Amino acid sequence: MKDIDSILHALPEAISHTFGKGKPADYIPALAEVPRDRFGMAISTVDGQDFIVGDAKESFSIQSISKLFSLSQAMHYAGEKVFERVGVEPSGNPFNSLSQLEFENGIPRNPFINAGALVISDILLEHLKSPKQDFLDHIRRLSGNLDIQYDERVFRSEYDHGQRNAALAYYLKSFNNINHSIAQVLDFYFYQCSLNMSCLDLARASRFLANGGIDPVNDKKVVTPKRARRINSLMMTCGTYDEAGEFAFRVGLPCKSGVGGGIVAVIPGKMSICVWSPELGAKGNSLPGMHALKAFIEKAGISVF
Amino acid sequence: MKDIDSILHALPEAISHTFGKGKPADYIPALAEVPRDRFGMAISTVDGQDFIVGDAKESFSIQSISKLFSLSQAMHYAGEKVFERVGVEPSGNPFNSLSQLEFENGIPRNPFINAGALVISDILLEHLKSPKQDFLDHIRRLSGNLDIQYDERVFRSEYDHGQRNAALAYYLKSFNNINHSIAQVLDFYFYQCSLNMSCLDLARASRFLANGGIDPVNDKKVVTPKRARRINSLMMTCGTYDEAGEFAFRVGLPCKSGVGGGIVAVIPGKMSICVWSPELGAKGNSLPGMHALKAFIEKAGISVF
Amino acid sequence: MKDIDSILHALPEAISHTFGKGKPADYIPALAEVPRDRFGMAISTVDGQDFIVGDAKESFSIQSISKLFSLSQAMHYAGEKVFERVGVEPSGNPFNSLSQLEFENGIPRNPFINAGALVISDILLEHLKSPKQDFLDHIRRLSGNLDIQYDERVFRSEYDHGQRNAALAYYLKSFNNINHSIAQVLDFYFYQCSLNMSCLDLARASRFLANGGIDPVNDKKVVTPKRARRINSLMMTCGTYDEAGEFAFRVGLPCKSGVGGGIVAVIPGKMSICVWSPELGAKGNSLPGMHALKAFIEKAGISVF
Amino acid sequence: MKDIDSILHALPEAISHTFGKGKPADYIPALAEVPRDRFGMAISTVDGQDFIVGDAKESFSIQSISKLFSLSQAMHYAGEKVFERVGVEPSGNPFNSLSQLEFENGIPRNPFINAGALVISDILLEHLKSPKQDFLDHIRRLSGNLDIQYDERVFRSEYDHGQRNAALAYYLKSFNNINHSIAQVLDFYFYQCSLNMSCLDLARASRFLANGGIDPVNDKKVVTPKRARRINSLMMTCGTYDEAGEFAFRVGLPCKSGVGGGIVAVIPGKMSICVWSPELGAKGNSLPGMHALKAFIEKAGISVF
Repeated sequence: MKDIDSILHALPEAISHTFGKGKPADYIPALAEVPRDRFGMAISTVDGQDFIVGDAKESFSIQSISKLFSLSQAMHYAGEKVFERVGVEPSGNPFNSLSQLEFENGIPRNPFINAGALVISDILLEHLKSPKQDFLDHIRRLSGNLDIQYDERVFRSEYDHGQRNAALAYYLKSFNNINHSIAQVLDFYFYQCSLNMSCLDLARASRFLANGGIDPVNDKKVVTPKRARRINSLMMTCGTYDEAGEFAFRVGLPCKSGVGGGIVAVIPGKMSICVWSPELGAKGNSLPGMHALKAFIEKAGISVF
Repeated sequence: MKDIDSILHALPEAISHTFGKGKPADYIPALAEVPRDRFGMAISTVDGQDFIVGDAKESFSIQSISKLFSLSQAMHYAGEKVFERVGVEPSGNPFNSLSQLEFENGIPRNPFINAGALVISDILLEHLKSPKQDFLDHIRRLSGNLDIQYDERVFRSEYDHGQRNAALAYYLKSFNNINHSIAQVLDFYFYQCSLNMSCLDLARASRFLANGGIDPVNDKKVVTPKRARRINSLMMTCGTYDEAGEFAFRVGLPCKSGVGGGIVAVIPGKMSICVWSPELGAKGNSLPGMHALKAFIEKAGISVF
Repeated sequence: MKDIDSILHALPEAISHTFGKGKPADYIPALAEVPRDRFGMAISTVDGQDFIVGDAKESFSIQSISKLFSLSQAMHYAGEKVFERVGVEPSGNPFNSLSQLEFENGIPRNPFINAGALVISDILLEHLKSPKQDFLDHIRRLSGNLDIQYDERVFRSEYDHGQRNAALAYYLKSFNNINHSIAQVLDFYFYQCSLNMSCLDLARASRFLANGGIDPVNDKKVVTPKRARRINSLMMTCGTYDEAGEFAFRVGLPCKSGVGGGIVAVIPGKMSICVWSPELGAKGNSLPGMHALKAFIEKAGISVF
Repeated sequence: MKDIDSILHALPEAISHTFGKGKPADYIPALAEVPRDRFGMAISTVDGQDFIVGDAKESFSIQSISKLFSLSQAMHYAGEKVFERVGVEPSGNPFNSLSQLEFENGIPRNPFINAGALVISDILLEHLKSPKQDFLDHIRRLSGNLDIQYDERVFRSEYDHGQRNAALAYYLKSFNNINHSIAQVLDFYFYQCSLNMSCLDLARASRFLANGGIDPVNDKKVVTPKRARRINSLMMTCGTYDEAGEFAFRVGLPCKSGVGGGIVAVIPGKMSICVWSPELGAKGNSLPGMHALKAFIEKAGISVF
């Protein structure tokens, strides 16, 4: 696998022209403060190897990438029943957050938009005894890193800027698609978003998706092979906000992004990838990150298509 | 004014065929329990006379008719500034509640949709020392009835079914169009909706709108003549939910309705009217009430057009 | 009626500050070429008097004001049946033209949006032997001016920029709400829009709306009193594009505007007004025209509210 | 490859329970007349083998599957420039046809919705000398079947029910996203939709998409490898109307469907598949066809994810 390593180390140079064209998320102070020039990438293969470049061991706010882990945990506990309360269609709509719920009677389009993740959180609250600790343990186990923590400051900021999520939660409740109290749901949801992880943590934590649902390092089954495939398909069609079509078209891999600048990508049967760089494009995905993924698969000659 | 009296007393017979075609609001138990056959109408003229028929002295839940009084009170305190935070255009959209806010950046279309009334409540909270008591006093003064009370059971029900209003309030706050806490705003808003008044109370309380803003009985200026005209125009274009065009077309008067089955109408320069009957049409307006207003103006040969 | 005359002659001065703040319609060359400083106003009272100021005798392109005359003609022939094919609700939506039709199954919101006027044209095609000539005769009779003509150049331009109207017409036809050929409907519709009339012509032609449907000069019944009231109410709620609420709120009269810069207003029982000035505001209504109407009714102390 | 054959022959039995639950397209008489119990499936592998079952050699109306071939032809001639005039995002909206164009200024969401295919047709009209014949030749060459014809009766029916497509075309033209005459564009577009092909024809004709853009039988390059991947990704995210997410989730393959009941699927690097059965589900995709694809990949243990 010398190739992966050499391709990886050529990437920072190859995508250096993409810096300065996006801008970091600024609605949360802690996100806005991260130096713009950070760039890291990590790859974990299904045979247990890791490859890293740049700031791949530096922790950042995972934000919406957490939706990947909450969904897989919810599917573990509730199986296909999850999809009675959230759909599997792309939102396809910059105005999605509330209008779509209104048109579609409180069923969020998919588990990766905020409304969907709030429903997923509500589902997990039914199954987890200590929701926050259990979720943290799940992530720690998947990444093999017991030091992963949530960021108290980011967590507080989410609350301070969380009116839109509160609106979504109340709106979902008006359609009886939230069972727990709004306070519980938001508290748990904001917690998930405020975890800090590195590229290496995230690549390892999502490796099971490249390996039929089984963590190749400890051989533990996270989800069934079928569910792993389905999560991958959801990442492909819905994982990168309103840019999912563009990602499928240009990158061609299942991806899940977060406004912290991280993107997780899966190459089924081969490897999981996490790239991170804070400058976001217009649709909220890391611009250097998207280019790095594109350059990597072109060099490596890999595609699911 | 013998005419008014005789036209009024012929109405119950004239509209008897409209009963059984609508249905009372049922999202709040207390509303669903009101006997469907209730019908009352009251007229208060600008020269201080009152005319009543049927159950015109029976109290009912005023619901959205309260928006008339909160708006006039807000215009009294904040003048034209009110319209920097709410618009004056009809919503024209059954899907208005949240989608429209999303498209129009948190400025509610007008003060008579729920989102608009929440903003009006927020404005009043800035100006009133004891908001609930002050609002109640305002209503009592206007109607000349010191016995008017709010209905504790309806108030509680509003809370129990208030998730959509909570969603609206949080959404408005995410656009910085709510300054007070969501709890304060909802508490005050639900209080307004849960007042109980009779047709006679409401006809008297809205008489100032037919008289250039001045209460003809005690000569007190409620709003300026210009503002009275503007409130009347808002009632005409926005006062009856998504049916405002239909009301303007068929009834041709400024009206404000509530899901409790009441409708207030104004004939500028002449009189204010309140009709009440619980069965609602598809758009949420009292069906017998609409027909009674239509029959009255046809018999009386009155129209603003 | 010396008052009207003096108020009228003070208007050009009073609204002079509003020039230079809007801009003329430019999608049609002939409209863009009209000098921006033109301003005229004409009033026709129900007792047969005319008052004019400024360029009130200069002809301009009536554009959407024609919808007033096609609607009244259609109501003359088809009565209430017209409203089985078009609604009476404000469109309330800047994105109205096609989206709303999609949501509401091919029934245009009202007869004053383009989609509605295409349906009205289709209805008239069923009743008129020589549609264009009959429509022209109708207008000439109402205004008492046999010299009124259509503008060939404007008519051609409407065709050249008429793709959106063609799209609307085909879309309506897909819902079976157009019976004649698209070519016939568009040809007739563009013809109506391309008539040239002066303020005086238009004030006289709409005087029947202020007089219960009867032309006070020749005592001819154009429509029934009830229908005149209903047309007035439609003008109030839908006559000035997405600004109808604003017009009702600020002007408080039934109005119908056109992108040629003309606005017709009706004061029921008293007079009809036409004001003209080419500079349009953001919503497509003459800016000096709106201010002139507002100034006039304030000075004259007239309002329907 | 004995396996493929045996899996294929077990399918009709395996999916027999899905018959009678959908209904054939009925807006075109010729489509409604096809016997509902037809079922065929064909597979063409990248090493040149064919496998068939049931009515795989019976011709049917390819309808929207034609969009696959017009897109690949347009990408052959115009390359990436195609995507300056159509997007690559899923439409995500049952109300997509016109509303979305309105919100997004005349740029269709993707080349597989009708609006997008009209733009693609317009692009091809610039590059093809005899558009219809050239397109037919392209299809004949790809499928190796010189007998493929268009269906005159279906073609006429498309015209008779083509008002919505005409509306789309005029609307696109109003945004300057159609250069040729509406008549030319519609004529060419309806022609493409009215081709008759069998499952075997379609599996062979789309085999190049499974083989990096190269027709494995005659070694001819249809599109570059990169473009083949991109077409596959577009099929995955947008190929099955508003059900693309569901297809990705349940089937997990790039697919393109038509209301004639056909579905083409691609397994990159391995094979192309065409299944056909006329009964459609609520979103317009063949219900037995979708189940057959799902059963096939489960049995064969194949997935891109």
